[in-house]
Amino acid sequence: MAKTYHAAMIVIGNEILSGRTQDKNINYLALKLNDAGVQLREVRVIPDVEQTIIECVNEMRARYDYVFTSGGIGPTHDDITAESVSKAFDVPWGIDDRAYQILLDYYGEEAFSDARKKMAMIPEGADLIPNPVSSAPGFQVENVYVLAGVPTVFQSMVDYIALDLKGGDIVHSRTVSSPHPESVMASQLGEIQARYADVDIGSYPHFRTGSWAVNIVLRSVDEALLDAAEKEVAEMVKRLEKP
Amino acid sequence: MAKTYHAAMIVIGNEILSGRTQDKNINYLALKLNDAGVQLREVRVIPDVEQTIIECVNEMRARYDYVFTSGGIGPTHDDITAESVSKAFDVPWGIDDRAYQILLDYYGEEAFSDARKKMAMIPEGADLIPNPVSSAPGFQVENVYVLAGVPTVFQSMVDYIALDLKGGDIVHSRTVSSPHPESVMASQLGEIQARYADVDIGSYPHFRTGSWAVNIVLRSVDEALLDAAEKEVAEMVKRLEKP
Repeated sequence: MAKTYHAAMIVIGNEILSGRTQDKNINYLALKLNDAGVQLREVRVIPDVEQTIIECVNEMRARYDYVFTSGGIGPTHDDITAESVSKAFDVPWGIDDRAYQILLDYYGEEAFSDARKKMAMIPEGADLIPNPVSSAPGFQVENVYVLAGVPTVFQSMVDYIALDLKGGDIVHSRTVSSPHPESVMASQLGEIQARYADVDIGSYPHFRTGSWAVNIVLRSVDEALLDAAEKEVAEMVKRLEKP
Repeated sequence: MAKTYHAAMIVIGNEILSGRTQDKNINYLALKLNDAGVQLREVRVIPDVEQTIIECVNEMRARYDYVFTSGGIGPTHDDITAESVSKAFDVPWGIDDRAYQILLDYYGEEAFSDARKKMAMIPEGADLIPNPVSSAPGFQVENVYVLAGVPTVFQSMVDYIALDLKGGDIVHSRTVSSPHPESVMASQLGEIQARYADVDIGSYPHFRTGSWAVNIVLRSVDEALLDAAEKEVAEMVKRLEKP
């Protein structure tokens, strides 16, 4: 059986926890990973607190094939991700010559302030992740990818990583829309699920103008199985159709 | 010193992890908790897996004053939150008479199927959380609030809970917009932060039409301190203004 690749995401962001900002990065990463044959299995949103970041990175990197962090790699006092990740790996945090040169080229000698030089400081031995939007790179240490929090930059970094991320079989999905509420279909849907152990069948209701409708989502790496299960679900929905 | 109230949220949702659905509940809860004097300190998005739910609920409820879960309390086979929470608390999972009556009144005797009866099954001893949208209640066991995942229902349950949730001092916030990139302000902003230990100063860049601008967000329970820090930040931004 093919190996399954699992990932976790760590959103480092007081601004998400305070409600000031609506996260957009989780969804982007989830979709890109799925296309690469990697399944996002857990997300943690944590505050900008060094010890919390260290513990979370160490717990996640031991548990998952890949870990992606977002946020906290800019030049200001509240950007503590790079230093915290260095501590998690117990390696020195310092100027990386390649990152220094990239930032120097971008800003020019005169404008290359100490604050900007901080963005060249990463864990020793890390690989750089290019930032085509605004130059300051992300980085990778072992299975941990440290990315910017600003969505445009985050997305460009994810796109770059996804190019050659090693993944397994891709999980395909089918959606069957149903005008019936969940509770009318529940028992038959459960029976279909019981017969298709390798298809994950989820039921997602939405409430509109006073009544429920449902999207039934089927997911599997096996497209033939998926087609068969989809057909059964679609027929079940049709049988329930009011005359 | 006043007690600070901390909360965690557990999003139980394969649909968020697969990227099929963009979460909207985290932000809503974060803002409502903040208004109630409760700080959201951690969010975990986990899959619909019983053992994962049990462990996560038990870890979070020991660590935080309040825990809020979303998702998995409907009638279908993939709705396993209520049973999992019962196991986390090691109490029986069964029909609750009050929930049963609410659902019976809503559906009527004839349409009250076994699948719908499942929505009356909660942990023994739990309190109900009303659902004005579609009747099936959420519930509360000790410091854990179990809510629906559908945003309209989730929101109505949060609104109900927020009415008399015990909280501490409310964290107020101020935002100063700056046309300067972070790296130009970083050192002065760090100095202001150093002088205001009880004000949390965050810097949130956004990249538009090829250049950075920044929102500087100040947060504190102390409004006088907040006003003073805001004034310093605003003056700093002004000093940097190009002539």
